Amino acid sequence: MNSEEIRFAMTKKRHFETFNKAVKEKKADKAFIPLCNFVSKTKNFFTSSCCSGRILLLELQKDEKKLGSNFHRKWHRPVKLEEVWNALQENVSGELWFKMEPLILHLGTDNLEHANIALMAIKKAGVKRGGIITAKQGKFLFEIEGTQRISVPVKSKGKILVEKKFLAFLVKKANAKIKKNGKAIKRLEKELKKVLK
Amino acid sequence: MNSEEIRFAMTKKRHFETFNKAVKEKKADKAFIPLCNFVSKTKNFFTSSCCSGRILLLELQKDEKKLGSNFHRKWHRPVKLEEVWNALQENVSGELWFKMEPLILHLGTDNLEHANIALMAIKKAGVKRGGIITAKQGKFLFEIEGTQRISVPVKSKGKILVEKKFLAFLVKKANAKIKKNGKAIKRLEKELKKVLK
Repeated sequence: MNSEEIRFAMTKKRHFETFNKAVKEKKADKAFIPLCNFVSKTKNFFTSSCCSGRILLLELQKDEKKLGSNFHRKWHRPVKLEEVWNALQENVSGELWFKMEPLILHLGTDNLEHANIALMAIKKAGVKRGGIITAKQGKFLFEIEGTQRISVPVKSKGKILVEKKFLAFLVKKANAKIKKNGKAIKRLEKELKKVLK
Repeated sequence: MNSEEIRFAMTKKRHFETFNKAVKEKKADKAFIPLCNFVSKTKNFFTSSCCSGRILLLELQKDEKKLGSNFHRKWHRPVKLEEVWNALQENVSGELWFKMEPLILHLGTDNLEHANIALMAIKKAGVKRGGIITAKQGKFLFEIEGTQRISVPVKSKGKILVEKKFLAFLVKKANAKIKKNGKAIKRLEKELKKVLK
């Protein structure tokens, strides 16, 4: 192996160990485990992080940048209206947004040829957003992102902006999108299994 | 020039003509014109499409896929509460979502080395999403996407789900985000000008 190959093998091993540890500690994203397991057994690919979608109450500071904003609540599962409604009652200093964020996956490989194989499989699976975010010989990194989302302000200057009935509608929609993401991950897994080696 | 270089020069020329035509017909996205103008004068890069952000009333059909959904309204500018509120009153068969979508830019180049130069400038400009979506020798294509967005259902089964006061808040937020996008495009333009040739 040349030095580039050695570096890639080490990177792949490191990410595999992190993933394995997360699985053991039950911190890994369940919906992604079969896909990550498969990728870890290929020769040329690794996964470095994933999230099958999440529901948030995000507290934004004045500039609305994510940096400096605060997860008032973060759920990696369907939610109940009451838990969201109750969390809304708590005092916060910033502006609260109800968010459903899409699935995200970071996938790595060693060269442009392999990157293209993955790129085509991702497109075939119908995942719309994302692409190669690092492109160096020996290390190519993808960020893959779904499109299922909700993003809406729900509390500002201490005042709740939405009726409970409307929040119930948002919660129903967000939960349905979490379920849809599960199906999208299955489609992605199927396409990657066809071509990744 | 070899055949790859000839093909790239032709692609670049074609996109430049499309852009020029759009400018003449006043169909080009104003906030992006200086950036696209600059890129068109480089040797190794072209832009193929751009949008500085838009505000939508999107009518989704049952499966919520964008395919088959309908732009009930589409604005590439700040909006007034009354025009959104009035559009909400009209009959639609699907579910209406109020959306503010982020800036988007498609940028092309000829090889991996140049793609990396652009990738670093994009990161430096603080544009968070997107990457290389086509990676063939002779043709590399980026999709660059901002993160400023709102996405919320506002009408379902013929019933308006939001109060006018809340819609006013959403409109104010969406208009502020359009303005923010203008600044992000300026930052991107500045970083690209430093390194693209």
